[in-house]
Amino acid sequence: MKFVIQRDQLISSVQDVMKAISSRTVIPILTGMKIEAKESGITLTGSDSDISIESFIPAEENGNVNVEQIEAGSIVLQAKYFPDIVRKLPEKTVEIESDENLKVTIRSGKAEFNLNGQDAEEYPQLPKLQTDDSFELPIDLLKSLIKQTVFAVSTMETRPILTGVNIKLENGNLTFTATDSHRLASREIPVSEAPGQLPTVVVPGKSLNELNKILDDTEETVEISVTNNQILFRTKNLNFLSRLLDGNYPETSRLIPEQSKTVLHVKTKELLSTIDRASLLAKEERNNVVRLSTKGNGLIEITSNSPEVGTVAEEITVPSISGEELKISFSSKYMIDALKAIEYEEVKVEFTGAMRPFIIRPANDDPILQLILPVRTY
Amino acid sequence: MKFVIQRDQLISSVQDVMKAISSRTVIPILTGMKIEAKESGITLTGSDSDISIESFIPAEENGNVNVEQIEAGSIVLQAKYFPDIVRKLPEKTVEIESDENLKVTIRSGKAEFNLNGQDAEEYPQLPKLQTDDSFELPIDLLKSLIKQTVFAVSTMETRPILTGVNIKLENGNLTFTATDSHRLASREIPVSEAPGQLPTVVVPGKSLNELNKILDDTEETVEISVTNNQILFRTKNLNFLSRLLDGNYPETSRLIPEQSKTVLHVKTKELLSTIDRASLLAKEERNNVVRLSTKGNGLIEITSNSPEVGTVAEEITVPSISGEELKISFSSKYMIDALKAIEYEEVKVEFTGAMRPFIIRPANDDPILQLILPVRTY
Repeated sequence: MKFVIQRDQLISSVQDVMKAISSRTVIPILTGMKIEAKESGITLTGSDSDISIESFIPAEENGNVNVEQIEAGSIVLQAKYFPDIVRKLPEKTVEIESDENLKVTIRSGKAEFNLNGQDAEEYPQLPKLQTDDSFELPIDLLKSLIKQTVFAVSTMETRPILTGVNIKLENGNLTFTATDSHRLASREIPVSEAPGQLPTVVVPGKSLNELNKILDDTEETVEISVTNNQILFRTKNLNFLSRLLDGNYPETSRLIPEQSKTVLHVKTKELLSTIDRASLLAKEERNNVVRLSTKGNGLIEITSNSPEVGTVAEEITVPSISGEELKISFSSKYMIDALKAIEYEEVKVEFTGAMRPFIIRPANDDPILQLILPVRTY
Repeated sequence: MKFVIQRDQLISSVQDVMKAISSRTVIPILTGMKIEAKESGITLTGSDSDISIESFIPAEENGNVNVEQIEAGSIVLQAKYFPDIVRKLPEKTVEIESDENLKVTIRSGKAEFNLNGQDAEEYPQLPKLQTDDSFELPIDLLKSLIKQTVFAVSTMETRPILTGVNIKLENGNLTFTATDSHRLASREIPVSEAPGQLPTVVVPGKSLNELNKILDDTEETVEISVTNNQILFRTKNLNFLSRLLDGNYPETSRLIPEQSKTVLHVKTKELLSTIDRASLLAKEERNNVVRLSTKGNGLIEITSNSPEVGTVAEEITVPSISGEELKISFSSKYMIDALKAIEYEEVKVEFTGAMRPFIIRPANDDPILQLILPVRTY
């Protein structure tokens, strides 16, 4: 195998693929990165069994030559050293060559690295997904869906299914839902030209976080394909494959209260920074709990106290408030996460009493929904 | 005590003073920050016994009003919460008030914090230094002196005196020297208008690192005063006090070879990035060791190898080389630290054989000196 490649292109592909590579894996060869050269270009592959990433660098793209002097072949290189080496090479181009003894030579300017490779035949084959049942989304929309829900997955392994995001495509509507049983985040969007129905799946939160990091915020599309135990996200030069979580995702719709007793409209940023301040004293002993009280005259008050340290109180004048008076306590962290996820200027908060879950939505009723369970403080 | 202060000024002073405050201290009140209001302005004080920092915010400065409505007094606040509170307050001004029960109220906009303070009478008095025996330096020069030497102090407590930088003022020359017994860094500068002689002192490396972080890179001056067990660095609005290390600093001048057998001139950046690349494979088992060999024809070669991973080699064409041929091995980390500290384009490296310490200096003979002991590799 041999090729000469633009270093910038190589760096960016290597960085993407590294997101799937773990130094702690039970399959030793998966600590390496597979490099495959074909006439059409170079494919880098990394995998930790849960996530697999393939990044393709086309030999030519939009009239630019990325890779030259290609001699087909493949090799696996130790991923621990390869990214730093590529990043620190002196010139704009890099020559990579391997011989029949699995010795790999990396040259750039006067620098020459000789590394021990491993046989690419021993690298596991990635499953090939049937892509008949697939649909497309703009990449920036997929990133929003992930960011608005994934933070609410559980980090506890006691109910593994809750560590994933539930993705459902029904009647032309795509829904992402995540819950750790103390809060819930979901968003629904219409998908045109989608297959009527796809199997409902649960994708590990970790996979979606990595996917979100790799995808650039563009309006190009990503193609999503699902089988029983894998999901594939495919963009022009990237294949991102994740295993799915086994088990039944809980029915979450019945958690969402249908009526409300107190309805509040409030500027997102103002509520966010007030709760952020109130949470400063609530960090440790009080488990981040803050209290919201209605004060009449279009005022609410956010308070918190820590017996050792002191108390904090701040009033907010809200655009509108209706219904019953209310005092309710909740985790400031959950509220901050929820408000950050709703990328709208104004939110509507709907309460059904101090002991019942409450809902935060964009004021314009866009189908983003954040639900938080209150905390009993007396 | 009461005052209304510009928040930006307060944030920057609090950040400086926090550098001296540790949450792990044997004197509980030192986990707090002392705030003292006088008609002339506000003084913040933090200390961990080793380092003490006083930052003064003048009520008026250059025609700008920083502090208003001052009622004299003082209080100690828990430093764990205060910086975050100040940073996150909503308005440009902050009102701080304490009552006779040591309750402190912090107000900004509609936000109000009520904190438990401690009696400032219980805060230890900082020692007052005699400043007769003092001299002045431009701040940017002091920062250079620190950066060019402090990295070479020892991090091991086996010889505590080596964890400090030796500061010597003799015959109008000021010298900073640091060594961990494997390498040495020193710089000498002439000081005009200084007292002929000051006690030679050893300042903890940690203190100088913190001082370097706090001081802005300006041409204003810092006044340095020394007593037997303390050193004071004083700028317009800042007092930085550090304890000194007890004991005799070793005589380092005899370590420095007076003759050399091989002399090399080389571009600093080129040598630095080549050694940086060679060190990539030398990270763990080989303890960062790289080898430098002369190759004739104005060439040197930097190599490194790690049996498990592979080898790396790179040639450099140097501006000049004279004397005996040489193969020498040394820690890439020490060499990288030394080259980074010498802020000149070209360096002169003087060797006296593969087993003897070698010296790196700016090519123009400025009195910055970096000395490194080689590593025996066979």
